[in-house]
Amino acid sequence: MSDGLTPRAFREMVRGGRHTGQTSGVCPGFAQTNLVALPRAYAYDFLLYAQRNPEAIPLLEVTEAGERLLRKIAPGADAATDYPRYRVYRDGVFTEELTDVSGLWREDFVSFHIGCSFSFESALIEAGVPVRNIEENRNVPMFVTNIPCESAGVFSGTMVVSMRPIPFALVPRAVSVTARMPRVHGAPAHIGDPSLIGIRDITKPDYGEAVTIYPGEDPVFWPCGVTPQVAVLNAKPSLAITHAPGHMLVTDVRNAALRV
Amino acid sequence: MSDGLTPRAFREMVRGGRHTGQTSGVCPGFAQTNLVALPRAYAYDFLLYAQRNPEAIPLLEVTEAGERLLRKIAPGADAATDYPRYRVYRDGVFTEELTDVSGLWREDFVSFHIGCSFSFESALIEAGVPVRNIEENRNVPMFVTNIPCESAGVFSGTMVVSMRPIPFALVPRAVSVTARMPRVHGAPAHIGDPSLIGIRDITKPDYGEAVTIYPGEDPVFWPCGVTPQVAVLNAKPSLAITHAPGHMLVTDVRNAALRV
Repeated sequence: MSDGLTPRAFREMVRGGRHTGQTSGVCPGFAQTNLVALPRAYAYDFLLYAQRNPEAIPLLEVTEAGERLLRKIAPGADAATDYPRYRVYRDGVFTEELTDVSGLWREDFVSFHIGCSFSFESALIEAGVPVRNIEENRNVPMFVTNIPCESAGVFSGTMVVSMRPIPFALVPRAVSVTARMPRVHGAPAHIGDPSLIGIRDITKPDYGEAVTIYPGEDPVFWPCGVTPQVAVLNAKPSLAITHAPGHMLVTDVRNAALRV
Repeated sequence: MSDGLTPRAFREMVRGGRHTGQTSGVCPGFAQTNLVALPRAYAYDFLLYAQRNPEAIPLLEVTEAGERLLRKIAPGADAATDYPRYRVYRDGVFTEELTDVSGLWREDFVSFHIGCSFSFESALIEAGVPVRNIEENRNVPMFVTNIPCESAGVFSGTMVVSMRPIPFALVPRAVSVTARMPRVHGAPAHIGDPSLIGIRDITKPDYGEAVTIYPGEDPVFWPCGVTPQVAVLNAKPSLAITHAPGHMLVTDVRNAALRV
C-alpha cells in the first residue's frame, strides 16, 4: 500500500519492484505523468507533435538525450524504472510489457513526461462532481476516437480520450473546473453521443476498464496522454517505450500548482 | 491607418511595404505574435527551450522546415514578409533591421511564432485596469532581467519582461485576468521593486519606450516574447531572424479565444 507515502518513497517502492500495479489514487494531491521515450532521431518530430496537440500531449518535462533522471517535476526519478509498468513498441508493433526497461534504455533516448487527467480528478471531487472510476475503484476507460491530431513529421494519428460519466446538471461545472488545468489536458474534447467521435461501444474501452453510466448522465471525454501511443503505431520508430495505460510516474508536483 | 482592416488585409498592407511601423493597437481583438526563425539544425534545441520556458516563449505555431507560409493562426501569412520589421542576427551579433527578409530566408528555416502580451491588454482594459503604454500611445517598455531561463542545448539566457504600471489596488485583478491567458505569457513574473530582478533604471528600458509611473502604482512585469533574442545572442547560430520588438504579425486568432 502507498498510504501516506511521499512521492519519492513511492517511486523507491516502484523502483524496487514492490509496486507494479496501477497508480489511480496513489499519493493523493500529487501529479502523475504518462511516458513516451524515443531515440533522439525522432525527438524533434515528437516534440513538435506535442506542441501542435497540447490538449492531448501537455509536456511537463523532457529529459536530455541519454539522461534517465528527471530534474524538474520529480528530481532524481529514473525514467527507466520509476513507472510501474512499461509498454515496448518495436517498429510500431507492441511487443511486451515490462516493469523495468533499464536493459532497453539507449544512450540516445529522450523521454517525454506528459500531464495526466488523474490530476484534475481531485479538483472535480472538491467541486462536487463525482468521478465514477474512483467510486468504482477502476482504471479510467479510454477510447481511440476519430478526432484528428495535427501531424508533425512522422507522427500522426487520432486522439485518445478518457471518459467520465457526469450528471447533466454538473457538466458545466466539470468543464469549467478542468478548463483551468490546461497542463493536465484541460477542458473536455467532447460531451455526449460517443458515435460522433467514432466510438462504437461505450462499454468496451480500448484501454482501461468500463465504468457504470447511470440514466441522467452524459459521457464526457477528455484528451488523454495515451494519444502518443497511437502515433507511435503509425510512425513505427525502431524502438519506443511508453507507460502502460494507468501505470504512471508519481511526481513531486502538487495538482493544485497546475491550476491556472 | 489600419482602422477597420481585417488581419488578412493588414498583413497584405505589411507585405506591400505600406505599414512598416509598430503594431500596438492594430486590428483590436486579434492576437499578435513574436518571431524567431532559425536553421533546422537549431530547431530541436529551440523548441525544447520554448517547452521549458513556456511563460516567456508560448508557441502558437511552428512551421515546417523551409515552409514560409503559416497554416493555423494566420492561414496564408508569409513569415518572411508579413512582420512589419525584422532583426537579423549573424553569429549572435545583431547586424540589421529589414522590412522584408525573403532574400535571406533559407530552405532549412523553421519559424516559431510566439504569443504576445498585447493580447491581454484588451482583457485588462475590459476589467478596468489601465494600460499605460496604450494611454500614452507608446511601445511597451521591455527589460532584460536576471531571472534565469531553463537552458536547452545551445540556448540559455535570462528572461526579458514587459512592464506596465498598475495602481496598487488593481494589482490583484491584473494578476487574475492575465493568469487566465497562459498562451500569451499568463501571470506576471514579478511585482514591485525592479532591482530585485536586476533592473537598474526603470526609466531606461532595453527595448520599447519608457512610460510614466504615477505615485501609488507598482511596476508589474510580465514574461516577454523578446526573451529568445537574448538566447540567440548567447547561442550564436550562423543566422537567425526575429521580429523587431513591437513589430508583430497580426493573426486571425481572437484574443478571447486564448483565455482559459
